[in-house]
Amino acid sequence: MRWCRVAGGAFGIVTEDKVELVDGTPFGEHRRTGEVRALDAVRLLPPVVPPTFYAVGFNYRSHGPAPERPEVGYRAQSALIGHGEPVVKPADAEGAFEAEPELVAVLGRTVRRCSRDEAADAVFGWTIGNDVSVRGWQRTDRTLWRAKNCDTFKPMGPWIDTAAAPLEAETTVSVDGVRVAAFPTGAMVFDPYDYLAEISRYITLHPGDVLWLGTGATVEMRPGTTVDVAIGGVGVLSNPIVPEEDE
Amino acid sequence: MRWCRVAGGAFGIVTEDKVELVDGTPFGEHRRTGEVRALDAVRLLPPVVPPTFYAVGFNYRSHGPAPERPEVGYRAQSALIGHGEPVVKPADAEGAFEAEPELVAVLGRTVRRCSRDEAADAVFGWTIGNDVSVRGWQRTDRTLWRAKNCDTFKPMGPWIDTAAAPLEAETTVSVDGVRVAAFPTGAMVFDPYDYLAEISRYITLHPGDVLWLGTGATVEMRPGTTVDVAIGGVGVLSNPIVPEEDE
Repeated sequence: MRWCRVAGGAFGIVTEDKVELVDGTPFGEHRRTGEVRALDAVRLLPPVVPPTFYAVGFNYRSHGPAPERPEVGYRAQSALIGHGEPVVKPADAEGAFEAEPELVAVLGRTVRRCSRDEAADAVFGWTIGNDVSVRGWQRTDRTLWRAKNCDTFKPMGPWIDTAAAPLEAETTVSVDGVRVAAFPTGAMVFDPYDYLAEISRYITLHPGDVLWLGTGATVEMRPGTTVDVAIGGVGVLSNPIVPEEDE
Repeated sequence: MRWCRVAGGAFGIVTEDKVELVDGTPFGEHRRTGEVRALDAVRLLPPVVPPTFYAVGFNYRSHGPAPERPEVGYRAQSALIGHGEPVVKPADAEGAFEAEPELVAVLGRTVRRCSRDEAADAVFGWTIGNDVSVRGWQRTDRTLWRAKNCDTFKPMGPWIDTAAAPLEAETTVSVDGVRVAAFPTGAMVFDPYDYLAEISRYITLHPGDVLWLGTGATVEMRPGTTVDVAIGGVGVLSNPIVPEEDE
C-alpha cells in the first residue's frame, strides 16, 4: 500500500493514477472516505511530518569513512518539502550544492529497547529523501544547521510504500531525465534495523518518526535542472532546483 | 500571562495556584473554558512541543569558547519532559552527568528574513530548559544524539511566561534546595534576537518553535537529588534525578 499526504494535510492511499483521501492517519485509526482524486491533480506534501527526525551520517563505503557504530544525528522538520516542490539554492551558498539520495524508514509503532527483529516489525514502510547539502557550510559551521537544514533542503516522498523491499533494490539519481548515479540501496555498513535497535537503547521511537539512512553517491545540483531520486519498488522523488532570487 | 500544558495535552493559563484550561493554542485561536484546577493537582507537560527544536551551543564566556557567529544546532523532541518529571541517568552513561540551565525563547509567529526588532516581536514568551548532558558521550560520539538527546534529557517548563524580562534577571541552580550556581541570564555573547534574525536568513521560524539559549554554568546531577533551575520572573523548573534501574 502507498500512503501519501496531500495539500491541506489529509492522508491518502495511492492506487495507480488515483489518490483516495483518508480520515485519520496511517499510524492509528483511519477510514477511507471514498473521495478520489487524480494523482497528477494533487500537490503532494512530505508523506509525514516526523515527531523526531533522525538521519544517519556515513553509511556506505562508497561515500566517506565507514562508521564504527550505528550512530545517528538529527535534521530539522522545517526543511521538509514534498515531491515536486522546488529546492531553493541560497544566494550565498558556499562550495558544492549536492544531492544525497537516501532510503528513509518510517516508524509505525512505539518501541524502546527493541531487538533487530522488533525493529523490523516496527517499520511501517519506506520513502525517499534527498539530503541536500551545501559543502562549504558543512566545513565552516559548527553544526549542520545551514549545510543541511535551510528551507527546502529536505525533499521527502513521494509517498510511503509499505510493501517494497528497498534493501534488495537500486537507488538511482537522474538529472533532467539522464541517469548520473546509481548504487545498491542495501550496500549499507549498518542496516536500518541496526540503527533502530541502537537508537532504542536510549530513546523511545514513535509512530511517524523517520530515519534517513545515508547515501552511497552525491550529485551536483544546478539551478534550472530537475533532480529525480528513484528507489526500486518505492517510487521516484522529483524536485526542480531553483536559485534563491526566483523564489 | 503564563501558559502551561497539562496531562492530556490541553493548554492552560496559570494564575497564582490555579490553572484554567483553554480550548485551542496560545499561538492561534483559543478561548478560556472556565474549567479551573489546582496547580499542584495537575501534571505539567513541556509547555509546547516545538515544530523544530533549536539550541545554541556556547553562548556565555563563563562556559566554553565564545562563538564568532550566532550559530545554532538541534535537539530532539523525543527527549522533552515537563516540570516535575524524573530525569533518568542511563546505566551506561560515561563521564560527568550535568545540568545546563538555559533560558528558552518560544516563537509566536511565522518569520523569515526578520530584523532583530521583528525577532523581538516574534517572541511569544519565555520558558526554562535543562540541557542535560553526558560528557563522555559528548566526546566519543559523532553527534550529540546520546550526549544530549536520550529520553528525559530535555526538561522544559514549568510554563511560558509572556511578560517576563529574563535578560535582566538571574539564572540559578539549586540541588535539593541548596543554591550551587548562578549567572546573569543576559550575559550572552549573542542575544536571542541575534540568533533568531540569523536563523531566519535561511530558515522559516514557526509558532511554537523553541530556541534554547546556552548555559553560563554546569552542575553535576546525582541520582537521588532534585535539580531546580530558576530564572527571575519566569519561574522554577524542578526535576528529580533517578538512576535507570529505578525507572
